[in-house]
Amino acid sequence: MKIRVVENVLKANDALAQENRQRLDEAAVRTINLMSAPGSGKTTLLEKTIEQLGAERCAVLVGDLQTTRDAERLEKAGAQTIQINTGKGCHLSATEVARGLEELDLDKVEYLFIENVGNMVCPAGFDLGEHQRVALLSIPEGDDKVAKYWTLFQSVDAILLTKMDLLEVLDYDINRVKADLARINTAAPFMEVSSKTGKGMEQWFNWLKNKQD
Amino acid sequence: MKIRVVENVLKANDALAQENRQRLDEAAVRTINLMSAPGSGKTTLLEKTIEQLGAERCAVLVGDLQTTRDAERLEKAGAQTIQINTGKGCHLSATEVARGLEELDLDKVEYLFIENVGNMVCPAGFDLGEHQRVALLSIPEGDDKVAKYWTLFQSVDAILLTKMDLLEVLDYDINRVKADLARINTAAPFMEVSSKTGKGMEQWFNWLKNKQD
Repeated sequence: MKIRVVENVLKANDALAQENRQRLDEAAVRTINLMSAPGSGKTTLLEKTIEQLGAERCAVLVGDLQTTRDAERLEKAGAQTIQINTGKGCHLSATEVARGLEELDLDKVEYLFIENVGNMVCPAGFDLGEHQRVALLSIPEGDDKVAKYWTLFQSVDAILLTKMDLLEVLDYDINRVKADLARINTAAPFMEVSSKTGKGMEQWFNWLKNKQD
Repeated sequence: MKIRVVENVLKANDALAQENRQRLDEAAVRTINLMSAPGSGKTTLLEKTIEQLGAERCAVLVGDLQTTRDAERLEKAGAQTIQINTGKGCHLSATEVARGLEELDLDKVEYLFIENVGNMVCPAGFDLGEHQRVALLSIPEGDDKVAKYWTLFQSVDAILLTKMDLLEVLDYDINRVKADLARINTAAPFMEVSSKTGKGMEQWFNWLKNKQD
């Protein structure tokens, strides 16, 4: 019984995700689902990204249990921003994204960023209708996270190692991360970035500007 | 239908949690459920705690999606350690803890630490049979996390602000965290610690040694 219900929920989500994707395709809006642990730097990355791409070309759907703090920051950066509060919900769903899309004017928008709830587990299992998925992993989280949260890292199209400016003060072995990724996901580019210093951000901007699959 | 099933799952969990607690009471083992985001320092805190309390007095149940890396570290610290791999599961359940308890020899043990899956959302909703709940929050995660992940911080008996050694290199406002906590949870002591330098750890050890409710 329990399993049947869970399967039905997932099937309903996937069908709606497909509708979202079709709608985004028609509007020619490339949509990227950003996933990570809490505090790995999703919002700061988006602030810098919006500045680089141009605010009028970007829209953001922000998922949080509570508070509108991230949405306020992104709105300040100039992008159309919709906050989705999930209450106790541990991930965004295709239904919530569909409702968010209703509120956006996608006319001039080329990029839609979905900032998922800060959680390395549950978001990985839910298709939202995005075109690409990106995982963030920050230096202070430690170099053992790829192997532990493999369902997330297996499912993504790009991986950003963030807060590289902290590498010098912390004991972190990037080769360990690369070795884990070599077993789980060899297709996704691995980019080492610091939103603070700007180091490595060019690679991320180029990935956004070039890759369209 | 969906809601009914979820309620049944939660009820079954709570009943089993109560059995776990009774068993732990009978064995006179004080049990503490540690919850936090990935990479906030649960395992390092436990290594130092086991060293301080004495390895023979401590046992640990470690929840992870995959890998036995944390369990290996804690076993090396000398404590009886059982790894629980949850696969894609985003939190530990009372059933998993009950199975873990079967494997432990609680005879000489005074403290059982349950290191939950790194996730600030889902673990908060599941009673495991613990006596006390502790949330960790690390400096690099940013000072906005209490308000965002309020269900966790509302539910705990103590809060540790970890990686205090990084305070000087990061822009972090402890007063903002305290102001958020003042709205959510005023009963839980708030301890500022660094497992790396040892600063503030005395308060945590004293809390463990003294408080028994």
